[in-house]
Amino acid sequence: MHAFQKKGAIPLYTQVADWIREQIYDGTWNYGEQIVSENQLGEMLKISRGTIKKAIAQLCEEGLLTQVQGKGTFVTDDKISYPMGKGLLSFAESMKEQNIAYTTKVLEKRFEQANAHIAQKLHIAQGDTILYLKRVRYVNEEPVMLIENRINIQLCPGLEEVDFTTQSLFDAVERISGRKIKFSEARYAARTVGMERAPYLDVHESAPVLHLEQIVHLDNDDVIDFGNVWLKSNRYYLGMIYQR
Amino acid sequence: MHAFQKKGAIPLYTQVADWIREQIYDGTWNYGEQIVSENQLGEMLKISRGTIKKAIAQLCEEGLLTQVQGKGTFVTDDKISYPMGKGLLSFAESMKEQNIAYTTKVLEKRFEQANAHIAQKLHIAQGDTILYLKRVRYVNEEPVMLIENRINIQLCPGLEEVDFTTQSLFDAVERISGRKIKFSEARYAARTVGMERAPYLDVHESAPVLHLEQIVHLDNDDVIDFGNVWLKSNRYYLGMIYQR
Repeated sequence: MHAFQKKGAIPLYTQVADWIREQIYDGTWNYGEQIVSENQLGEMLKISRGTIKKAIAQLCEEGLLTQVQGKGTFVTDDKISYPMGKGLLSFAESMKEQNIAYTTKVLEKRFEQANAHIAQKLHIAQGDTILYLKRVRYVNEEPVMLIENRINIQLCPGLEEVDFTTQSLFDAVERISGRKIKFSEARYAARTVGMERAPYLDVHESAPVLHLEQIVHLDNDDVIDFGNVWLKSNRYYLGMIYQR
Repeated sequence: MHAFQKKGAIPLYTQVADWIREQIYDGTWNYGEQIVSENQLGEMLKISRGTIKKAIAQLCEEGLLTQVQGKGTFVTDDKISYPMGKGLLSFAESMKEQNIAYTTKVLEKRFEQANAHIAQKLHIAQGDTILYLKRVRYVNEEPVMLIENRINIQLCPGLEEVDFTTQSLFDAVERISGRKIKFSEARYAARTVGMERAPYLDVHESAPVLHLEQIVHLDNDDVIDFGNVWLKSNRYYLGMIYQR
């Protein structure tokens, strides 16, 4: 049995939350499975039910646990694979491969002037017009991905007319620009989501997210898109097979 | 100017921390660069220095900012690339490619009996003996990576004698087993580090980390290693070029 420090500097519910996290991280409790009830946990750990409740609430905010009304508490199942090492797939193509249905909501679509940072990424001049696009993607009505695109609209005039609720960005770019998308430079990092983006993914501001920064090139090497994608943690993983 | 809610439900320092986070996430403040002084920030935002200090302390705990004694506060530079899409590289090979010097500390090396979860991953029976190996890697004396390996020691008897302070695991496995490492199945996710692992990486328990789970196969397809790697966020990113 684990020894909790009832009089230590670390709140008891934080210690219990961490004990639960370890059960998951070390594989004793599996992703997607229901966990034992609050009463059982309290008895197992000799901890009051109020403290157990608080620990579980913290892990729900973090996204590691999910409570389902009338059913119980589950280890959140991160079963959506983000495509890696399969070449550059659009989100639509990747979800189709996995047989996962999704919907898209367009939150913003407007012209903006590029600041110095954006101008450098897109290889344009500061102050040049770009198309800014902000979308959220939902699976089973749960928001799983926030996407911000900054597009060099000079390379694709008319793109602003597209209804991105039903059309994929890559398809629309290829159709309107008459060019193919050739490659992208991607970098992934783990970050804290923060107050600004937490509401879009319906998580607490302290939740971890996978952040993808992507520079997308056309077949003449022009940069068409500087994308920032925020993937809900505990839903998405990056899957990859390495050959030696 | 940003409007802070001085009487809202969200503490003012949390709002300021989030404002700083946005400067970084939207590229106004660059990774690796020094940020403006606490006094300047206080004047810019019309916020007391004590609140600014608290906001900066929170972001240092999170790992997004780094304070350097006598120099000031910097946006942490996540400049170490974890190899992706280049085939299966050992850590040693990848660091050599990037010209980054590192050291390794072996924290644990012992025989264990496989639990059900580990047995399933290694394709062995529950209760079979495995070698458990726990290492921390340091760059510039800063811990950047915690590695836990669970190794099917039947495939590589004698591996426990190796000094992993100076030798890489993959090299030792290939030398002792007489087999080549052929491929690995990897999955990456963003997670909260938690109390158990935070001290090894010298971060706060709430810090985000990149978690890599890896199953490593020999050239006869036997599973030699079930690895769990915890990469310090704001230090590591996963870099990748996708071809369409």
